[in-house]
Amino acid sequence: MAAFRLQISMSLDGCVAGPEQSLDDPLGIGGEQLHEWAVPLAAFREIHGQEGGEVNPSDSVLREATANIGATVMGRNMFGPVRGPWLADAPWEGWWGKNPPFHHPVFVVTHHAREPLTLEGGTTFHFVTDFEDAMMRAAKAAPDRDVAVAGGASLVRQALAGKWIEVMDLHVVSILLGRGERIFDGSADLRAFRLVRTIHAPTVTHYSFIRS
Amino acid sequence: MAAFRLQISMSLDGCVAGPEQSLDDPLGIGGEQLHEWAVPLAAFREIHGQEGGEVNPSDSVLREATANIGATVMGRNMFGPVRGPWLADAPWEGWWGKNPPFHHPVFVVTHHAREPLTLEGGTTFHFVTDFEDAMMRAAKAAPDRDVAVAGGASLVRQALAGKWIEVMDLHVVSILLGRGERIFDGSADLRAFRLVRTIHAPTVTHYSFIRS
Repeated sequence: MAAFRLQISMSLDGCVAGPEQSLDDPLGIGGEQLHEWAVPLAAFREIHGQEGGEVNPSDSVLREATANIGATVMGRNMFGPVRGPWLADAPWEGWWGKNPPFHHPVFVVTHHAREPLTLEGGTTFHFVTDFEDAMMRAAKAAPDRDVAVAGGASLVRQALAGKWIEVMDLHVVSILLGRGERIFDGSADLRAFRLVRTIHAPTVTHYSFIRS
Repeated sequence: MAAFRLQISMSLDGCVAGPEQSLDDPLGIGGEQLHEWAVPLAAFREIHGQEGGEVNPSDSVLREATANIGATVMGRNMFGPVRGPWLADAPWEGWWGKNPPFHHPVFVVTHHAREPLTLEGGTTFHFVTDFEDAMMRAAKAAPDRDVAVAGGASLVRQALAGKWIEVMDLHVVSILLGRGERIFDGSADLRAFRLVRTIHAPTVTHYSFIRS
């Protein structure tokens, strides 16, 4: 594999999701504003099997960040709103419908073991009970490609504290959420990250860092 | 008075000072990077009684933010590195020398009462043992002018949580400090702030918010 790559949208006050996440409000109160910059883009629509969309500097940023991803690691709270053991009948299959926008193996870190879930379009969710195991399996599943560290906040904090992240794409959105889930809590030594690019768009600034 | 105005430089990961602040490292490890955007500016040099300096969009931002300030409130840890009671002989007189760059009354919130300290150029430091009392006295001292809420992090968190801040100038510097003092900790409801202006400079983005 090439690199563990964090790509995340964050409010100016450091939130990657709003408070009170739920089935009706997957990103918490106000959290959907974090992704408004991405949704209209041609690259975003393409990933979701749609045509058209805006082509602008943010589109290039998103396109480049997602082009070389061969596997994804995410936390259980990003996979779904269910807490505790999986339901035996009709267990949760993710937020993304029958054909999720990943099109590669996704490793979900969870306390609750479960058989892999294969959906359409090349996406298989693997449920892994150990964070480091999930990272290593994702790396193996993506030879010569990047591994996306997707979220949520708890998984990202763990990946940063353990110095796993080699490339960090921070999309800082010009909003304040006040309360919510934060990825920077002072537990990670971030001074090894070197800023390599800044791209300004009207409602978001895209920062790219590399661990040196 | 016109408005309580927060003006502060912050790293991308939310720090307004680095860790381990001390007499040798007033802004903590790496913290001086937070102000590198301001130091070369003509407006900054003017405030400090110097000539020359750069004139660019950041200069206009700084000039506008400081033009109408009639009083400043700061926390004791911003005033100096001394903790506990003031020394009876040669007590600490601030970081700023004989002629501090304020040129107006400064209200220092501290647990330890002390007589006012008048220095050159119109700056008098008043030591106030109650936060709200300091804010009200600053407002009275600045009729028709803004009151600057200067820092440090603890005072700013208190001012935000108490909904005192009406104008917020956030200078977000393109660095990660990892550890340090944070002003956004989830205790304040920030959703009342409305973004009114964004100005991009090479190493900093200036956001202006107004409480609506």
